[in-house]
Amino acid sequence: MTNYVYLYANGKADGNSTMKDLLGGKGAGLAEMTNAGLPVPPGFTISTEACTDYYAANQQFPEGMWDSSIAALRKVEEATGKGFGNKENPLLVSVRSGAKFSMPGMMDTVLNLGLNEETLQAMADLTQNERFAYDAYRRFIQMFGKIVLDINPEKFDHIFNHHKEKIGAQLDTDLTVDSLKEICQEFRSLVKTETGSDFPSDPYKQLELAIRAVFASWNGKRAIDYRRVHKISDDLGTAVNVVAMVFGNMGNDSGTGVAFTRNPSTGEKLLFGEYLANAQGEDVVAGIRTPKNISQLQDDMPEVYNQFVKVAEMLERHYKDVQDLEFTIERGKLWMLQTRNAKRTGAAAVKVAVDLVREGVIDKATAVTRVEPGHLDTLLHRMVDPNEKLDVLATGLPASPGAASGRVVFSPDDAEALAKNNEKVILVRIETSPDDFQGMVAAHAIVTARRGMTSHAAVVARGMGKCCVAGCGALNISYEKESFSVDGRTINKGDYISVDGSSGRVILGIVKLIDPNPDENFEEFMTWVDEFRKLRVRTNADTPHDAEVARKFGAEGIGLCRTEHMFFEGNRIDAMREMIVAKNHQERQHALAKIEPLQRDDFIGIFRAMNGYPVTIRTLDPPLHEFLPHSQAEVNALANKLDISEEELSTKIKNLHEANPMLGHRGCRLGIVYPEITEMQARAIFNAAVAVKHEGVIVIPEVMIPLVSDVKELALQTEVVRRIAKEVFEKEGVSVDYLVGTMIELPRAALTANKIAKVAEFFSFGTNDLTQTTYGLSRDDSGRFLPFYVEKKIFKDDPFQVLDQEGVGKLIEMAVHLGRGARENLKIGICGEHGGEPSSVAFCHYAGLNYVSCSPYRVPIARLAAAQAVLSEGKSNSQTA
Amino acid sequence: MTNYVYLYANGKADGNSTMKDLLGGKGAGLAEMTNAGLPVPPGFTISTEACTDYYAANQQFPEGMWDSSIAALRKVEEATGKGFGNKENPLLVSVRSGAKFSMPGMMDTVLNLGLNEETLQAMADLTQNERFAYDAYRRFIQMFGKIVLDINPEKFDHIFNHHKEKIGAQLDTDLTVDSLKEICQEFRSLVKTETGSDFPSDPYKQLELAIRAVFASWNGKRAIDYRRVHKISDDLGTAVNVVAMVFGNMGNDSGTGVAFTRNPSTGEKLLFGEYLANAQGEDVVAGIRTPKNISQLQDDMPEVYNQFVKVAEMLERHYKDVQDLEFTIERGKLWMLQTRNAKRTGAAAVKVAVDLVREGVIDKATAVTRVEPGHLDTLLHRMVDPNEKLDVLATGLPASPGAASGRVVFSPDDAEALAKNNEKVILVRIETSPDDFQGMVAAHAIVTARRGMTSHAAVVARGMGKCCVAGCGALNISYEKESFSVDGRTINKGDYISVDGSSGRVILGIVKLIDPNPDENFEEFMTWVDEFRKLRVRTNADTPHDAEVARKFGAEGIGLCRTEHMFFEGNRIDAMREMIVAKNHQERQHALAKIEPLQRDDFIGIFRAMNGYPVTIRTLDPPLHEFLPHSQAEVNALANKLDISEEELSTKIKNLHEANPMLGHRGCRLGIVYPEITEMQARAIFNAAVAVKHEGVIVIPEVMIPLVSDVKELALQTEVVRRIAKEVFEKEGVSVDYLVGTMIELPRAALTANKIAKVAEFFSFGTNDLTQTTYGLSRDDSGRFLPFYVEKKIFKDDPFQVLDQEGVGKLIEMAVHLGRGARENLKIGICGEHGGEPSSVAFCHYAGLNYVSCSPYRVPIARLAAAQAVLSEGKSNSQTA
Repeated sequence: MTNYVYLYANGKADGNSTMKDLLGGKGAGLAEMTNAGLPVPPGFTISTEACTDYYAANQQFPEGMWDSSIAALRKVEEATGKGFGNKENPLLVSVRSGAKFSMPGMMDTVLNLGLNEETLQAMADLTQNERFAYDAYRRFIQMFGKIVLDINPEKFDHIFNHHKEKIGAQLDTDLTVDSLKEICQEFRSLVKTETGSDFPSDPYKQLELAIRAVFASWNGKRAIDYRRVHKISDDLGTAVNVVAMVFGNMGNDSGTGVAFTRNPSTGEKLLFGEYLANAQGEDVVAGIRTPKNISQLQDDMPEVYNQFVKVAEMLERHYKDVQDLEFTIERGKLWMLQTRNAKRTGAAAVKVAVDLVREGVIDKATAVTRVEPGHLDTLLHRMVDPNEKLDVLATGLPASPGAASGRVVFSPDDAEALAKNNEKVILVRIETSPDDFQGMVAAHAIVTARRGMTSHAAVVARGMGKCCVAGCGALNISYEKESFSVDGRTINKGDYISVDGSSGRVILGIVKLIDPNPDENFEEFMTWVDEFRKLRVRTNADTPHDAEVARKFGAEGIGLCRTEHMFFEGNRIDAMREMIVAKNHQERQHALAKIEPLQRDDFIGIFRAMNGYPVTIRTLDPPLHEFLPHSQAEVNALANKLDISEEELSTKIKNLHEANPMLGHRGCRLGIVYPEITEMQARAIFNAAVAVKHEGVIVIPEVMIPLVSDVKELALQTEVVRRIAKEVFEKEGVSVDYLVGTMIELPRAALTANKIAKVAEFFSFGTNDLTQTTYGLSRDDSGRFLPFYVEKKIFKDDPFQVLDQEGVGKLIEMAVHLGRGARENLKIGICGEHGGEPSSVAFCHYAGLNYVSCSPYRVPIARLAAAQAVLSEGKSNSQTA
Repeated sequence: MTNYVYLYANGKADGNSTMKDLLGGKGAGLAEMTNAGLPVPPGFTISTEACTDYYAANQQFPEGMWDSSIAALRKVEEATGKGFGNKENPLLVSVRSGAKFSMPGMMDTVLNLGLNEETLQAMADLTQNERFAYDAYRRFIQMFGKIVLDINPEKFDHIFNHHKEKIGAQLDTDLTVDSLKEICQEFRSLVKTETGSDFPSDPYKQLELAIRAVFASWNGKRAIDYRRVHKISDDLGTAVNVVAMVFGNMGNDSGTGVAFTRNPSTGEKLLFGEYLANAQGEDVVAGIRTPKNISQLQDDMPEVYNQFVKVAEMLERHYKDVQDLEFTIERGKLWMLQTRNAKRTGAAAVKVAVDLVREGVIDKATAVTRVEPGHLDTLLHRMVDPNEKLDVLATGLPASPGAASGRVVFSPDDAEALAKNNEKVILVRIETSPDDFQGMVAAHAIVTARRGMTSHAAVVARGMGKCCVAGCGALNISYEKESFSVDGRTINKGDYISVDGSSGRVILGIVKLIDPNPDENFEEFMTWVDEFRKLRVRTNADTPHDAEVARKFGAEGIGLCRTEHMFFEGNRIDAMREMIVAKNHQERQHALAKIEPLQRDDFIGIFRAMNGYPVTIRTLDPPLHEFLPHSQAEVNALANKLDISEEELSTKIKNLHEANPMLGHRGCRLGIVYPEITEMQARAIFNAAVAVKHEGVIVIPEVMIPLVSDVKELALQTEVVRRIAKEVFEKEGVSVDYLVGTMIELPRAALTANKIAKVAEFFSFGTNDLTQTTYGLSRDDSGRFLPFYVEKKIFKDDPFQVLDQEGVGKLIEMAVHLGRGARENLKIGICGEHGGEPSSVAFCHYAGLNYVSCSPYRVPIARLAAAQAVLSEGKSNSQTA
């Protein structure tokens, strides 16, 4: 028969800290502390297995669970010398949940269980403290009523507050014994009214109901929501901890508190916490009385404090990590009620990890596993203060991280005008186009109502390191009225809003921001990270500035340089537009000739910035109409500039319109129909390479052909690139080593990767497009249903944020296998947004890729995720599942 | 050493009719006829291998080829008793190409090779016919000059015609010997002027150059174009036939002709052909003199005729198929120069196949392989007379087969108005929307400038059996001017054009059309077809009418009933639009309640028409905005009807706009976000099923969920369908067996088919969308580059017409394998356009599918292709390559 119950008492426990799966974090911690000889009240843990078996058996206690629990309870009685339900010396217990992963505030606790009219009297007699006994009793009824009997807690509060008012009590402790007695009486009447039954007086019935309530809380809405947000499986179940009560509310020599062994915000090595004298645990949490700083305990109860400091130090050494502790002092005696690894900020995580290595507590490998990659974001970007109360207007896509506050404007001109007056401005647009560029430069943040993470707004913002929320469809923007409305509220030009590009939130008013602070701890930590990882980490960068930023963050090359983005800027767009509207080959050549020197100079800057590292340059990718103006005014202006009729230009724009531009005339399809475009780009690349080589720069160009579906497309474009390279090298008398490869971003490319690898010298997975085509899902249009899908768990994650290993991943694995089968030393990377997402980076490591590439600010995250993938490789293979 | 040369002489040949790959069709035929004892002039064939080795060796004759040719030439000399270049009794030869596949008119022939000043004289002496000798000589120079020396043939014609005029000759035969001598002289001067060298007089040099010219003609533009159109590999190469000359131009007891053993247009069993007395082969082809009917030969040369009839009958029996023969009569002696299986029309192919079975010549299995599936189209649709001279304005996509002539109109109202006056009208639109429906009903054909094979216009036209050309981007349509311009020409409202929906051609003026004529031969043939095929053939049909048509063509159920198409019609669209613009669940339910009885009645009609056969009904698929009006006037009208403000409606339409609707909020994503839509459709389906069951109809509904990317989507929609089915069956007290399955039309569905098959009871491959997503290629937008791709052979075929077996096919094979692994008896079909394309149908057979489904008129084609797949299975596995 399965053993469901694990005892700890008298310095000995059935469990230990390695059994978190079975005992939950709390139960494992109590067992471990007991074994370590620390003062822990005796108790037992009903395992998570009991919970899952309970649900499997249609909410019946699994066989043997209850009997084992009673047997354990007897041992607790022995250890305490008390009796459960005993009328002379009653044992009271707490019943608490405890899952594998700490889920603070999600699960519920019942204290003082075992109290009834008789044991209550015994408690009063034993403690010589009738007030204490009735206070414990009213707490018990209140908690049990709320959690186990599901009575609206406000009804209890109403009775309680009524009595406080009646006798003019400021604090709960001001209540008299008589008041407490009346309260208990009224609480029991309330239970009778609400449930139709008397409050259960049998302690065993109380225990049974409480255990069921803990199991039930696993499937409470709050718990389910928490698990959804934190990606915790619904199948784990919770353990139940039944522990002998100790009382922090037995007078001023008693108390209760929580503490961290180090500061969880900063990582500073200093006991950090607070306590309340004469209180039970929930008083600290409830915030009814203001707790004291833990240091105050040194003055109030120096012996207890010293003992606690020693216990805390011992636990940190034992667990080799910062601990989050709960304790109670009963009449001058310290009892430890919980220890667990502390949650902490990114900055604290880094500092603690580095300090623990310096202190000799952990090794570097362990330190590297101690920081969540996503937490590094807080070290790299300005953040909204998490303690701020926010009035969130709407949430869009987190298109570019960081945060900013400023005045709303709706046009690039207004953005520039206000910025000149040193106003901080937020540019709000339905969507942006190259014409908005100067306004985006002037703005502190950008918000768009349409389009997605790869929209013009998102890409330009990320390039400039500005925060951006894209695709915020809830905003109803009117350029005419110079306002947007959302949920019945209207925000006008000049009003203040704040933008959180890390979470996608658009917030009313100015909010407090926290500046990023990567210090020397961060630098040292990242050197350790690099010692372990095998994946190379490159960056997606389109300008020398981005390239420089990324190198500072440790990028080892550029994995994706999008040549078209160079043309969204300023007057450059004109040459591009001239090329697009060219009527024939000659006109197109003429316009391309204007573009070539601009591209060459860009490449020169990027090659210099990436001296010694490879630079992957993608040839022109987006459909040409993306470059064209949208409004009639812009069309007129362009027609004037290009000296063609407005009608001709309008017709051209109309003709370039596509029903599904994502699947249209773009990528290598452009270079195949107009080889002169690829020729120009190749010439710019190789002339730039030759130029910087003369300066002594080590230049490693990798020319990447996008949107290949068939090897013949790649072969045609490769021929163009190699022909131009030869021409340039012959003319300049210098040659440069380079590679020609391809994006794998269409299912057909992955499916025929063996053929493609015969031509391609490298693969780079474009997982944005690959996800779009594998799912048949436009990122730009997914806003209307994808959030619904994720909320309803139809999709576990947004596949554009977290790589879909089952479908897209299968194609990637096929392509790696087929590609390397045809070309053993094929270099393979990934340059989609997923290249900076930790679980996706881990997948890339397991799939055998050579590198990932991501936006500059995600480079440290990718480095850390890559190192952790190596370190977890030995431990388990489940990461690839 | 490879043997490159195959002799035939003296009733014995090295080759035979099975060696077409090596000898080409002509060479194999000559060898076979020689072996059969027929009068064939001796000669030899240089193999196709020599041609491919010639190109592989940078256009050098492969080792031994020339020597073997000379050796063979010696044998021909022996057989004829003549000598090549001999001044007394010279051997002249013809040099002709002959590839594996007959490529009429594509390759070139040189006759009379071996003539020079000396052999010319010998010929004149031997024949006692100076005129004949000089005529042969001038022909030789002319052909050699044109084909081998690449001289503009008009220059020869100019000289020739000048002499005819000079002496007032009507016919070539009117020319005098003196004229011919002068002509020969001037021809040789022309060659000298044009090439800078004398006309080669050495017969061996002549032979070498002629062989090279035949090889070169394999890569001539005409040959390449022909192979592209007919999907013939460029790697096959051509053989060269060097044959002793026989002369049809030796007087009135000589002649030359071509004949078919049966009528190639009708299949009638009657010798069909023509001949010219006193002429060489090219005179028949050139059409300078009008040839006589072959029956005339019976009067002119009864003995020769009788011999020829016997030879023809023998060859037909020998080859068991209609033969296409070439012959020459030299001074009363019949020489056979070619036999090959005759090209024929679809009607003839069917009649011949049926007759040959009845005559006991072939068995049914062979008969079934004798008709090209695509040729059945001509039996089922009105066709443009292939003999008509056409003024093709432009070519778009062949969206719905058939042909029509009529007056151009640009609006549905004009279409209706003219149709009321019994005018035939062609509706020309930029693209169509549901608002155009009545106009489409009134029109005889539809032409659109935008969108593709799955556009509204295409789908509606196919459903109505009207011909349609879609995506004809060359047409510049102006609604304002009521005209379209193309290539500098303007066609105004009221002008006549013709539309060929089978080829995509838009033709100026009225053209002669041929009515379809499926007769009793066709019916009998199709019963044989059904005896062999294993694949079931269903139809894509959205109306009872389509379903009835398809049943007549042999459909065994409906593989795809698109419920949304029911709402493009008439006033029904209003209820649909009301549903789309509904502000909340209540309003949506209200509108859906109006739609439900209409859907139910449609299903009743379809179930009745398909009594006894399964009907697969797809739930709502397209993005909702496809149903909304486009023009401001239509928006205003709809706002009025729905009693909402124009502003509100416009905003709604704007909000529904998608950047990439193909990848947007459509398919099951609609039913998941709005389950009430699926509920309504399920209720309509099951209420209809119950209603017809009461009538005694055998109803087998299969509910199909579209655009599934993850099994959870399917599970959610399946739950809705099964719940509603249960409700209906309980309420009505009757139940109906049904299946719930899914489209496999996204790569992710194929990749995770094992999971999906756990829920799906059937799969249906939606290869239109699967092709779009696998290639990342929008069918609607591919017009700008896909034709270029196919022309340049970057893609072998348009993957929307011919299933891409390498990429899309790989996904299909994976899905079949994974799906059947999870559910052994999984029913699998295909319902994309490919279900009616012969090579794709064969693939489906090999991949193990249960059925294909295609538009009604393609059902016979699919049946035939399915039978042929079975029959070719034993012969070779190369079909799946």
